[in-house]
Order: sequence, then structure tokens, then C-alpha cells
Amino acid sequence: MGPGNAATTTDKTCAYELGSAIAQQGWVLLTGGRREGVMEAANQGAKASNGLTLGILPTADETGISEAVDLAVFTDMGNGRNNLNVLSSDVVVACGMAAGTASEVALALKNGKSVILLNSSETAQEFFQSLNSQQVFPVDSVENAIALIQSLLS
Amino acid sequence: MGPGNAATTTDKTCAYELGSAIAQQGWVLLTGGRREGVMEAANQGAKASNGLTLGILPTADETGISEAVDLAVFTDMGNGRNNLNVLSSDVVVACGMAAGTASEVALALKNGKSVILLNSSETAQEFFQSLNSQQVFPVDSVENAIALIQSLLS
Amino acid sequence: MGPGNAATTTDKTCAYELGSAIAQQGWVLLTGGRREGVMEAANQGAKASNGLTLGILPTADETGISEAVDLAVFTDMGNGRNNLNVLSSDVVVACGMAAGTASEVALALKNGKSVILLNSSETAQEFFQSLNSQQVFPVDSVENAIALIQSLLS
Amino acid sequence: MGPGNAATTTDKTCAYELGSAIAQQGWVLLTGGRREGVMEAANQGAKASNGLTLGILPTADETGISEAVDLAVFTDMGNGRNNLNVLSSDVVVACGMAAGTASEVALALKNGKSVILLNSSETAQEFFQSLNSQQVFPVDSVENAIALIQSLLS
Repeated sequence: MGPGNAATTTDKTCAYELGSAIAQQGWVLLTGGRREGVMEAANQGAKASNGLTLGILPTADETGISEAVDLAVFTDMGNGRNNLNVLSSDVVVACGMAAGTASEVALALKNGKSVILLNSSETAQEFFQSLNSQQVFPVDSVENAIALIQSLLS
Repeated sequence: MGPGNAATTTDKTCAYELGSAIAQQGWVLLTGGRREGVMEAANQGAKASNGLTLGILPTADETGISEAVDLAVFTDMGNGRNNLNVLSSDVVVACGMAAGTASEVALALKNGKSVILLNSSETAQEFFQSLNSQQVFPVDSVENAIALIQSLLS
Repeated sequence: MGPGNAATTTDKTCAYELGSAIAQQGWVLLTGGRREGVMEAANQGAKASNGLTLGILPTADETGISEAVDLAVFTDMGNGRNNLNVLSSDVVVACGMAAGTASEVALALKNGKSVILLNSSETAQEFFQSLNSQQVFPVDSVENAIALIQSLLS
Repeated sequence: MGPGNAATTTDKTCAYELGSAIAQQGWVLLTGGRREGVMEAANQGAKASNGLTLGILPTADETGISEAVDLAVFTDMGNGRNNLNVLSSDVVVACGMAAGTASEVALALKNGKSVILLNSSETAQEFFQSLNSQQVFPVDSVENAIALIQSLLS
């Protein structure tokens, strides 16, 4: 999960690496599926490493979809699809932060999911850890994110 | 799409064959993902032919999921997920008929999707064709359903 | 519930009378809230009789809303909001028939709600009664619809 | 908006006063509709001042509903209904903070809505203002919240 048009260059670089690393683990990458920001970068990274990508789109059809999404679920629910994104993820990784991403982190915690924060500010880390001290995991690299996912899934 | 616990033996036999035939075409099978009736049979048929299966579940978690679903999207939306099922399908095939299936056929037509009716009564055919004379296609065999899908997608 | 832009003059006349009669009973009128067809007519009828109207809109904002809706719930869910319409109704009355209306009747039955059919063809009546012989009630007048609702709610 | 079972005594006292003040303004109170925490307190406050209350429930039926909800919309969407809560509000007021509330604040900002924060920590204020410096308004009393809503709606 991560910003769309508000994604920074760092967010996108990190998302590409993360998508690639997820694919190399043989895991399916789930994103919001749009051709923008972190979603696009993560999907491109996963495809570059021959991964399988699942996109849960806010739209009713292919408008704005990333070309690197293999399987698309069209919800026609706008931001309401964010709850599906987190319910359908084994572990949620937020790469960067914006309002939509924050809603996904919060919904993940509400639904009992673990959340890994990459490229997030200390303010964001402090806030989400104040909501839930046990399910929020700030990490400082894609490598550490992958190691943590392995640990959470085992 | 098709009945869950109200599925007849014919519905399930037909769904198994359809799932298998879809997999043999190299297509992804999308169902409502539950371990019941037409959903379960279609997924089992697809896996028996080494297909890829996508399930869009009414639940928030794996409760009641078919073991033959490869990729699961958890919606926590109950019957509200039926709109996502049809939006995310290139062509909708209804195998048998019950209230949930009828809602999917109607939503498919409302969303501009083509619908193939297998194992449906003349009453159902007449009703749905009265709603839309151009997008409803009754067929009498899995073979004809596959041929029609090929034609609709080409 | 009933057709939007496909509503016939009869559908709209009937919906206006129904909305008015619902208001006269002191009941809240719930519709899909759009400024079209049966929704618009029913809301206008209810307001002419000083009723309270609740609209559950497919949109994220007021675009296309009936001016006769008092309270609006914006879903941004497109046709996915149809499930909310029927879940939030004590009794569903379909006035006329089109694909969206058919999805609401089917979802109502799936969710265990009673459905009254006004201005529907024999084909529609026969089809929905084949899905559920106990919860589908064809009636031939607004007066009979109101009497039936009273009976169902008592 | 505000915590359910995690609401503090201060959250609930404040929510009761806020509900009452909203009713006194002649505004409709919209909440998540459950018989718990901030939702229950705000609805009770509104009814004590003869207000009209609208609840958008996560459930398919009346299970767990506040008795002080006049009009109920049943979504069967779990936490997915949070997006509807904010889309259907003219102004969002968060009273206290927990994961669900945080998702509503974030979704409100994503959907372009203004958010008033009551009883929120400096961390929460700092975090949400970092997401959007223009739409997030911390206030220190119900009186100031009402004055701000008046200003935002005028």
C-alpha cells in the first residue's frame, strides 16, 4: 500500500524493490492496482521478477489500471475498496504515507492485521503505534521488511 | 456463478465440467469462492485441469472458503460482493439458478456484461431476455458455452 | 425500487402514488435516491404528502440526486449499493422492472426480505416466484400494496 | 465518529454533549449506529435534545444497533461502511481516537472532507495535519466544534 500521485521518488524506488523481493519469495503481490505511484512501481517490480500480481481497483473497469496487474478485481467502490485490500492481504506493507494509505493502515489494525511501515515519518510511526503497540512494525529497508514478513507468516 | 447449498446434482456436474473447460482454455476461473455447490464444483474442476482460480468471498476471512481457490479476495460484504463478481468477469456464466445467482445475472446486465445461461429454466431465460434481448445467451452444453465465450472475447 | 431512465409512464404514476401512500402511513420512504424514473417519482409523491425520504445513492456526492431526498447516504458503490437498499428496507416494493430492479428483488430474496411486485409482467412474477414461493407477492394496485405491507409488518 | 468499546469516559461525555448540541442546531446526527462508546453516547445526546439520528451500520440487521438510532442503513460491510459514513457527512467530527476512527479521519481527508478533532492527542493532530494541513481542525470544546461547523457550512 502507498501513495498514488503523491508518491515521492523514494517511495517509488522502495516500492519497486519491494515488489521485486515479494515476487522472488514466490508470494503474490496485492495492490490497489492503479497505474500510479507506489501501486505502479510495486507491480512493475514484481513483474520484472516474474511474480504474480493481483490488483483490487476502485473503478468499475480498466480505466487507470496498471499494465503490470495480472489479475484485476473491479470493485466500483472508490476508496471503499481499501478495506478489501487489507482483508485480502496476509501482511500489509505501507510504503510511504498519504491519506489513502493511512486509511489502509488503520483498517488493517481494525481488522487485526499486522502492518509494516516503510519510509514513514516518526510521527506516523508514533501515531499508529499509539493505536496498536503490537501490530505496527516500522522497518528501515526492504530486506528487513521481507525478513519480518517471513517471521510473521511462519 | 450458480447456487450454493441449493445447487442440484446436475448444476454441480455441469459446473465441474465448465471449470475444467475454462482451465483448459488457459482462462482464469472467477467464482464467489465458497466451499459449496456450483462454486466448489467449478473450482474443483478447474484445479483438476491445472487452472488458476480466483475467489471473491462474502466473508472477512477464510471461513467457508473452497480449498480449490488459489487467490482469495475477502470482501466482508456478504451478498454485496456479487457486484464485484460480475464487474471482474469478462463473461458471466450462470450454471443453475437461485436468488443469489439471479442477482448476479441482473447486475451483470446492469453493468453491460454478457451472460450465458446454462441449466436454466425457460422461465429464467424468458425473464432475463425480457430485460435485455442482446446480452443474454442460453446454451445447452458446456461445449457451447466455451465456444460462445471464445466468440464474445474475440 | 424500480427503473431509472427506463421507467414507463405507468411505472412513474404508480411510484408517485406509492410514495404518497407510504408517507400517509407515516412510514419512511427509502429509494436509490436518483433524480430519475421511479426513484424521482416516489420521492416526489412522498414529499407531496409531507413524508420523510431516505436516499441511498450510487455516487460519492450529490451528482444526480433527487431534490426530493431529505436524507442522503452516499456510497460511491455504483450498483453495489443495491444490496444496502434492500437490507435497509422493512419491505421491498418493486414498481416496474429493469435489470437494476431485478437485482434488488433477487438480493432481497437472498437476504430473506419480502418483495411486493407492482406493474410487473407475468414472466417476472413467475420467475421470482420460482426462486421463492413464499416471499414474492404480486399485487395489482397501490392500495393493495399498502394493505399487504401493513399485514407483513404487523 | 469515535471509538466503540475503547471509548474513554471523557470520549463518551464529550460525544453526548456533541450529539445534543448537533440536535439543538437542527442538524441530523450521522454515526456508525452501534450501541457502544461514542456512537451510543452521541445518539443518546441527540435524542435527549429531540434530534434526528441516522446510523450506518456494519451489520446486515439490527444486531448491536443503538436504540437511539431513528433511521438505520444496514450495509453488511463491516468496517467497509466507514467510507460511507464520511461520504455522507457534511463535516466529520472525531471524538476520541482508535483504529476505526483513524480510518474514518483518513478516508474523510482522502474524499476531500473537513475533519474536526475533539479529544485527540497531539500525536494524532500532528499526524493528520501532516497528511493535510488545510482540512484538519483540532478543537478543545464542543462549543468550538459547533462554531467551526457553522463556519465550514456557511
